[in-house]
Amino acid sequence: MGNTVPATIGTRIEDVDTPCLIVDLEAFERNVAKMGRFMQENGLRHRAHAKTHKSSDISLYQIEKGGACGVCCQKVSEAEALVSAGIRDVLISNQVVSLKKIERLAALATRARVLVCVDDLGNVDDLSAAAQQYNVVIECLVEIDVGAGRCGVVPGAAAVLIAKKIDEAANLKFAGLQAYQGKAQHAYDYNERKEMIRSAVNDVEQTVSLLKSSGLNCDIIAGAGTGTFEMEAASGIYNELQCGSYVFMDADYQRVKDKNGEFLSEFENSLFIYTSVMSKTKADKAICDAGLKAQSVDSGLPVIYGRDDVQYVKCSDEHGVISDPGNVLKLNDKLKLVPGHCDPTVNVYDWYVGVRNGRVEALWPVTARGMAF
Amino acid sequence: MGNTVPATIGTRIEDVDTPCLIVDLEAFERNVAKMGRFMQENGLRHRAHAKTHKSSDISLYQIEKGGACGVCCQKVSEAEALVSAGIRDVLISNQVVSLKKIERLAALATRARVLVCVDDLGNVDDLSAAAQQYNVVIECLVEIDVGAGRCGVVPGAAAVLIAKKIDEAANLKFAGLQAYQGKAQHAYDYNERKEMIRSAVNDVEQTVSLLKSSGLNCDIIAGAGTGTFEMEAASGIYNELQCGSYVFMDADYQRVKDKNGEFLSEFENSLFIYTSVMSKTKADKAICDAGLKAQSVDSGLPVIYGRDDVQYVKCSDEHGVISDPGNVLKLNDKLKLVPGHCDPTVNVYDWYVGVRNGRVEALWPVTARGMAF
Repeated sequence: MGNTVPATIGTRIEDVDTPCLIVDLEAFERNVAKMGRFMQENGLRHRAHAKTHKSSDISLYQIEKGGACGVCCQKVSEAEALVSAGIRDVLISNQVVSLKKIERLAALATRARVLVCVDDLGNVDDLSAAAQQYNVVIECLVEIDVGAGRCGVVPGAAAVLIAKKIDEAANLKFAGLQAYQGKAQHAYDYNERKEMIRSAVNDVEQTVSLLKSSGLNCDIIAGAGTGTFEMEAASGIYNELQCGSYVFMDADYQRVKDKNGEFLSEFENSLFIYTSVMSKTKADKAICDAGLKAQSVDSGLPVIYGRDDVQYVKCSDEHGVISDPGNVLKLNDKLKLVPGHCDPTVNVYDWYVGVRNGRVEALWPVTARGMAF
Repeated sequence: MGNTVPATIGTRIEDVDTPCLIVDLEAFERNVAKMGRFMQENGLRHRAHAKTHKSSDISLYQIEKGGACGVCCQKVSEAEALVSAGIRDVLISNQVVSLKKIERLAALATRARVLVCVDDLGNVDDLSAAAQQYNVVIECLVEIDVGAGRCGVVPGAAAVLIAKKIDEAANLKFAGLQAYQGKAQHAYDYNERKEMIRSAVNDVEQTVSLLKSSGLNCDIIAGAGTGTFEMEAASGIYNELQCGSYVFMDADYQRVKDKNGEFLSEFENSLFIYTSVMSKTKADKAICDAGLKAQSVDSGLPVIYGRDDVQYVKCSDEHGVISDPGNVLKLNDKLKLVPGHCDPTVNVYDWYVGVRNGRVEALWPVTARGMAF
């Protein structure tokens, strides 16, 4: 990681080496404060999602300053990194099914409150065995598929079956439901998102009611993301929301429209890929140093922040092609790119360069970078 | 990086944690041997491109066993990592234009032969000043844009102007031309590639001839990649080829057709994303643990190796959706994915897990992972 530190504290932003990830600390802090206020005003717990940023510094900030009750992450290795940083309440909002990973999960539960999602009956046996071996309690949320079409059982009876088995298993605690509608987060149309969440809420209500008939109560009804959290909040049934992207935002989230057909504007772009013009041999274009290894383009190309005279139009391994119809860019000019998709973009960097008033104030490692297992 | 080691030496392949990158060592070695033989038989130098793998172990293998004369890379930080691993002949096949990076380049030239590409007159002054300061010689290739539309000057007079300036500059050596047609590498149609390279060769010949009239000789005429190297080799004018992807291959290269309309078949897939089924709640699909953070999907989704009964059909941050019409997959089943695009996929991993005869034989760090500046 040594060769990848792009700056030192106090460096002026103009002198920061590129490409690198910069965080506008003021925008970031406003985003965290805004979400914290929303959760407090609505009497909801916020379990901030660390999959977005993979940073223990940011997770701790969300807990200490943003009122988050704990964190979510997606992988055991991420959870290990966060627990090592002192975070003591971690939900892996995902299935953990290999025996090796289950053992790591149980070991981790000796040091922190650990919760995990479950969508398989056999998995309950394996989790219980490991929890007994390590003399810990692992809290389990039954994941129901509320429309994303990925993990999770069909809402209703199938979920009750797993919940019962968890409830009866030694060293496991049935803690509630995971009901995240991942597909809805980036649905650009407001009414489409609303319909997806209406349907998810319906699934949750039906399942909670069936669980109640079986004598099982849900402490936690979890889900929601930056694209839909106000809808889950208004449902009256979700009580623990898992927003992540709101800390940074990205170009794809800027395409998500609110009910007035405007951009979702509650949150500001605080994350940028800082890039330089490295070749300028053509009048109408410039080549910058942020290509495919400096970002993920799965959700489209980055957007150049604060500029409408130039446009990022093509991305290859090491280069970005910038259309420059006015021939305004010069060699070594620097630009801020709003990444197309923040989560996988962060995952190629080792450092965040936090900037305030034009100077580097923070260097935060991307603690769980590459921790995919 | 500690939390990201997926195996230990001797581990059976079935017990390697997922997702991770595995290298079939025998296929890898055959690929390197095949390219080495080709270069030797054609009297060409092979400056193997390290941008593909970012691994000092693999670069050293290409030099020691594959007959490569040295390496290429794209970034100063990559060059630093490779020089630290003992590699003494490194071309940065890219422009280095910021003063900070130029100083690092000059410092590096105290320890190794360092070459760089140039496409700007002002850059010549900066390189010369730094080379004088460090009392080193930096060798410069003038990059000409032979059709890729990225870096490089127009072939012909503009290149001669820069070459002359380099030739006259203190502590710089004009070493030849960089003439890489990046766009041609992944053009699927053989005749399209052939036409692109014919045009590139024409550009090179014209420029070399103009240079000669100015009394400048090119020691190095560099370019070519895995998709076109036989064409540059046949040109009679390129003398230093820069293939990289041939060591691994990927799903997109499998779409590149040879003159008979078949897949390019000289090289074998040796790189795989190893993944496990982590949720199986639906009869017709399975969810695996390799999503957007385990690969780059810029050139399409990965292909499941050796299987035509199941297909990777969708990719989200943490999950892959596998279509399983026969309901044959079970929880914890493992699959090998051929990545859509090897270079940016490698860049999210910290380790290669080298496998022979079903056991882990090598753990190679991705030495220059994330080294983008």
